[in-house]
Amino acid sequence: MERQREKVAVIGAGSWGTALAMVLADNGHEVRIWGHKHSQIEEINREHTNQKYLPGIYLPESIIGFSSLKEVLKDIEVMILAVPTKAIREVLGKLRDIQETPLTIVHVSKGIEPDTLLRISEMIEEEMPDTHLKDVVVLSGPSHAEEVSLRHPTTVTVSSKNMNAAEKIQDLFMNQNFRVYTNPDMIGVEIGGALKNIIALAAGISDGIGYGDNAKAALITRGLAEIARLGTKMGANPLTFSGLAGIGDLIVTCTSVHSRNWRAGNLLGKGKNLEEVLNNMGMVVEGVPTTKAAHQLARKYSVKMPISDALFNVLFNGVNPKDAVDTLMARVKTHEMEDLVNVLDLKE
Amino acid sequence: MERQREKVAVIGAGSWGTALAMVLADNGHEVRIWGHKHSQIEEINREHTNQKYLPGIYLPESIIGFSSLKEVLKDIEVMILAVPTKAIREVLGKLRDIQETPLTIVHVSKGIEPDTLLRISEMIEEEMPDTHLKDVVVLSGPSHAEEVSLRHPTTVTVSSKNMNAAEKIQDLFMNQNFRVYTNPDMIGVEIGGALKNIIALAAGISDGIGYGDNAKAALITRGLAEIARLGTKMGANPLTFSGLAGIGDLIVTCTSVHSRNWRAGNLLGKGKNLEEVLNNMGMVVEGVPTTKAAHQLARKYSVKMPISDALFNVLFNGVNPKDAVDTLMARVKTHEMEDLVNVLDLKE
Repeated sequence: MERQREKVAVIGAGSWGTALAMVLADNGHEVRIWGHKHSQIEEINREHTNQKYLPGIYLPESIIGFSSLKEVLKDIEVMILAVPTKAIREVLGKLRDIQETPLTIVHVSKGIEPDTLLRISEMIEEEMPDTHLKDVVVLSGPSHAEEVSLRHPTTVTVSSKNMNAAEKIQDLFMNQNFRVYTNPDMIGVEIGGALKNIIALAAGISDGIGYGDNAKAALITRGLAEIARLGTKMGANPLTFSGLAGIGDLIVTCTSVHSRNWRAGNLLGKGKNLEEVLNNMGMVVEGVPTTKAAHQLARKYSVKMPISDALFNVLFNGVNPKDAVDTLMARVKTHEMEDLVNVLDLKE
Repeated sequence: MERQREKVAVIGAGSWGTALAMVLADNGHEVRIWGHKHSQIEEINREHTNQKYLPGIYLPESIIGFSSLKEVLKDIEVMILAVPTKAIREVLGKLRDIQETPLTIVHVSKGIEPDTLLRISEMIEEEMPDTHLKDVVVLSGPSHAEEVSLRHPTTVTVSSKNMNAAEKIQDLFMNQNFRVYTNPDMIGVEIGGALKNIIALAAGISDGIGYGDNAKAALITRGLAEIARLGTKMGANPLTFSGLAGIGDLIVTCTSVHSRNWRAGNLLGKGKNLEEVLNNMGMVVEGVPTTKAAHQLARKYSVKMPISDALFNVLFNGVNPKDAVDTLMARVKTHEMEDLVNVLDLKE
């Protein structure tokens, strides 16, 4: 089957934006990538590498780098938005003044905005006038960029209010190594992707203390219940949390050495403070602002989120990480269904 | 709170039986452990070690080893049955002729008997006359023996047809490091524990091929859906599969270096054949007979179990592991809810 060749712009030349650009280039599309750092864009165009974010990987030569937003967006109908949550409003603000035709925006970030408590698709809808926005699609799932760039088998989920748009994005990305599934539950897909970073921080702390795989599995299991409780109350389908964008992404983020949020938690568990950890990482750790957002969401929706609350206290209130994990493990609850049944009760 | 001191016999001196004996000894109970190998029992009594199964661990001196079933069971009301699934009938057959008073049997094995397709509690009920059996309790969850023996934080679930019996066993084991929860869904707890070994073999194969964490997370996610589909049709509560005995145990078994089933799969993925792998392991790999049972169960209950079927073909029909995993990853299905919705449909 001959695939239609599309022009696609990837906004953000971090590890995930670059890896997704590679998938699109492998599929024969005309791929442009934008980054704000001129030297990085030169490296992409001259050396066909992006050593800071994907060390050792050779990029398809058909990927063209741009450092001008105006140029990268010329004649573009589909844009992949791959910037950290906190940079989204700034980038969209610039884009709004440049873009002339309506865009399909595929966001691949995983966060919730603190204070406004908006999901990323809602932030996009707020920033972009209707005349400039055709559809918003989210792409999420268990997908470390490093492995995607090595063309290892990977599965992701796409969702949108307009499932025709989601299916178009599915076709754009689908290939033998990169399997794309659709799920109509956009709220669940966005919430699952965002909140898993909190549990990954907690899992990293537990590993940093040296508690082992049994403790980590308990944290992940309860973390999933906590995410599902909140997500369901926010309007998600509880089944989404049993899928790729829920437990799938949660597992990979909590157990893989590639996971930034796990690594940050690990350093916290080893006794470093938040400032040292964030300096040490050199990349955005989405779980930190998301923990703040989750703490606020738990109150807004009256949902118990003990792991998110414990992490909030570790990150922002100086609580000792070991004390926080010990308290979580020793919670006075003996009937495990209490955790789980709430998930479905909320749907009634 | 003063804990009542109980006499408990642990039947089976492998890594899990020994680690559970340590938990009971830490709680002040009178703990006896039985093994069929005389030299091992002597080592436990003289050196207070069990080097083959828990290397480097010093056992509480209050644990007394026995090599006579008759002696270990004298005046015992609570027995922990910690032998491989395939040894259960033989052990119970001997025990039946010795035991005089009714026993509460706590089984901690994870399997399903091929051909009869019985869960372990059903095998126990079949082997033991009512006069000799008070209650059957299952204890399951994410709990590598090595970590339990190091007193790392661990959570497990207990279940029984008689929840008073389950609560008694909860009290027996509960301590600061070893947290015990109850769940009334005995079918779900037993099925979750048994079938996760199949997914661990598949995850090990994927890792052995070198496919990475994205592929493994996809396999685990689909594996959970597959377990839940079958379990729900067998009468389990679907929520159990989102708990400790479901996703919790599945995660730890698929991602921990301690997992035997994962290690066996890993060797298969690296090109070894089944016979070499089983010789290499030196311990029982429960996932192998369970794969046979699951293959039969899928037919009996008309449930699609693509991962179990693929593994069955690798283990028993000479299918190449890489071809099997590639076929699984490339399944022609684009809407992920198809996998998941079936779980709940089956309850209707």
